[in-house]
Amino acid sequence: MRGVVLNGPGDVAVVDRDDPRIEKPTDAIIKMAAACVCGSDLWPYRGIEKTGGPAVMGHEYVGVVEQIGAEVKNVKAGDFVVGSFFASDNTCEICRAGYQSRCVHAELMGAIGTQAEYARIPLADGTLVATPGMPDDDLIPSLLAASDVLGTGWFAAVAAEAGPGRTVAVVGDGAVGLLGVLAAKQLGAERIVVFSRHSDRQKLAIEFGATDIITERGDDGVTALKDLLGGLGAHSVIEAVGTQESMMQAIRATRPGGHVGYVGVSHDVRLPGDELFFSAVHLHGGPAPVRRFLPELIDLIWNRRIDPGKVFDRTLPLEDAAEGYKAMDERRAIKTLLRP
Amino acid sequence: MRGVVLNGPGDVAVVDRDDPRIEKPTDAIIKMAAACVCGSDLWPYRGIEKTGGPAVMGHEYVGVVEQIGAEVKNVKAGDFVVGSFFASDNTCEICRAGYQSRCVHAELMGAIGTQAEYARIPLADGTLVATPGMPDDDLIPSLLAASDVLGTGWFAAVAAEAGPGRTVAVVGDGAVGLLGVLAAKQLGAERIVVFSRHSDRQKLAIEFGATDIITERGDDGVTALKDLLGGLGAHSVIEAVGTQESMMQAIRATRPGGHVGYVGVSHDVRLPGDELFFSAVHLHGGPAPVRRFLPELIDLIWNRRIDPGKVFDRTLPLEDAAEGYKAMDERRAIKTLLRP
Repeated sequence: MRGVVLNGPGDVAVVDRDDPRIEKPTDAIIKMAAACVCGSDLWPYRGIEKTGGPAVMGHEYVGVVEQIGAEVKNVKAGDFVVGSFFASDNTCEICRAGYQSRCVHAELMGAIGTQAEYARIPLADGTLVATPGMPDDDLIPSLLAASDVLGTGWFAAVAAEAGPGRTVAVVGDGAVGLLGVLAAKQLGAERIVVFSRHSDRQKLAIEFGATDIITERGDDGVTALKDLLGGLGAHSVIEAVGTQESMMQAIRATRPGGHVGYVGVSHDVRLPGDELFFSAVHLHGGPAPVRRFLPELIDLIWNRRIDPGKVFDRTLPLEDAAEGYKAMDERRAIKTLLRP
Repeated sequence: MRGVVLNGPGDVAVVDRDDPRIEKPTDAIIKMAAACVCGSDLWPYRGIEKTGGPAVMGHEYVGVVEQIGAEVKNVKAGDFVVGSFFASDNTCEICRAGYQSRCVHAELMGAIGTQAEYARIPLADGTLVATPGMPDDDLIPSLLAASDVLGTGWFAAVAAEAGPGRTVAVVGDGAVGLLGVLAAKQLGAERIVVFSRHSDRQKLAIEFGATDIITERGDDGVTALKDLLGGLGAHSVIEAVGTQESMMQAIRATRPGGHVGYVGVSHDVRLPGDELFFSAVHLHGGPAPVRRFLPELIDLIWNRRIDPGKVFDRTLPLEDAAEGYKAMDERRAIKTLLRP
């Protein structure tokens, strides 16, 4: 099969890879309907995150089950399925508490590489959720979004306790931040403020439910937010970047007793204990337990109540993956969908 | 009046200070029934926290109202009162959300110095809670504990979401950690594990409701805890020290999706973002909003359902404050009560 590899910083290639096969009786093989490039794929692409030589890429996926292992019971060949970027058994104590991304048997899909024609899905029963039927083609981007960026934005909004009567601020205007806006709106937030300086992203944020845009960032952004809100920070802040600046911006933008939901993968972040202590905020985040939310998200998409697929503003054949990475790196695209 | 000052590291003196007087119509003056030395007082005593020259000391207090300002309505002369270490208006948006320690008009009682015969209490209506009547003498230590260490341990247990069906681990066996045990027990925790290597503190922890003691600390303590709990960390972890080691111990002792309630005042702590991210814990803490809990805590003490005053294992006249500090610094005492 064909699949994407990153040979080194900036060097994306589509190469022949071995077809995946059932390795354990709990595996399934899926034929990819669509894959995509994640903001987190840009860390190694930019050389900020080191990879040891050529690495398979991709951890978001939707597709049709081709084959199942002997112990798989919840999905069957022919099902259209969505899964999370962490495979999980969905039965252990951690999964049952809703933290499937930290399942005691969790496997990272990035190591399998779903920017490819096929993929092996470990722990298929606990990982995959079948849609009610074969989706219309226009639903595929939204279902693919559920696999990571929507699920991650949704988790961030839940972690930030977005809800009725609450003001939500969103740090990060990438796909996850924008879908954090959508999630906050769905969860009933009263006011949604987005930090963004890109007009295309501002436009989509407003379409998803943002009520206010702030173009300043860092401490200037915090000052602008407090001016907007009459002196206090937001009740809920979503952090979807993962840098020192964005984390401190999120913490400082939150009122005492408020909630920060952070999902940007932390890179070189060191949180000062004294400032965190006196901020009196709640801090929760990490790799999103997307599996927790998949049934609800699939239902919302299937019934066309949300359209998260709008974050894909570029669609390319899998063979053109290199251009997909480049467009996102240069901010010419919010998110690239790859068609195998 | 007589009052404690810290002239410099290790140098505690009791000196003549000006009698406090009503400065604002929202003030009250109280005559101290008892004051005490806090674990946090040891930071400047040990020279770890710098003070600019001689500093008044003490922020915990119970006593009888002597005089009130023209606008004070909720307490009157003759009332026996308990207050928090932060004065708060208890009416602003932050107070109403339960974060009185971060009231928009908060004043730190440590700057007033309650290790003295009298003290001015700002924002008396929002800060002080009157007991149902004049307390029996044996209740005074427990009411004094409510002013900070009990309220702080209680907040830590609430922040850590201690409750039925949950295992709680407690990092720190000082007065706050021990009262975190008491709080976790009252909140219905199923199992309470304390990290402690001091037999007197272990004994009190068990009296307050601890079910298990671990003598290792740091990463060895985390390993011992996970061995005890069958591989996973605790659901809820109370952090009551404030060092890098204790914070990391608390985070590592918590299972994914679990809750850390941290109340040790952070000193030179830098939390690594990547480890925090993948820990997937909830982190909440800061200066405890003791005022939120005071009515409930006073009720529990008044009805003799809890006896937090047991953390005072040394009682001295105010004039002997220096020995009170020394005994705590040398761990000869858990907590020293000072009688003016």
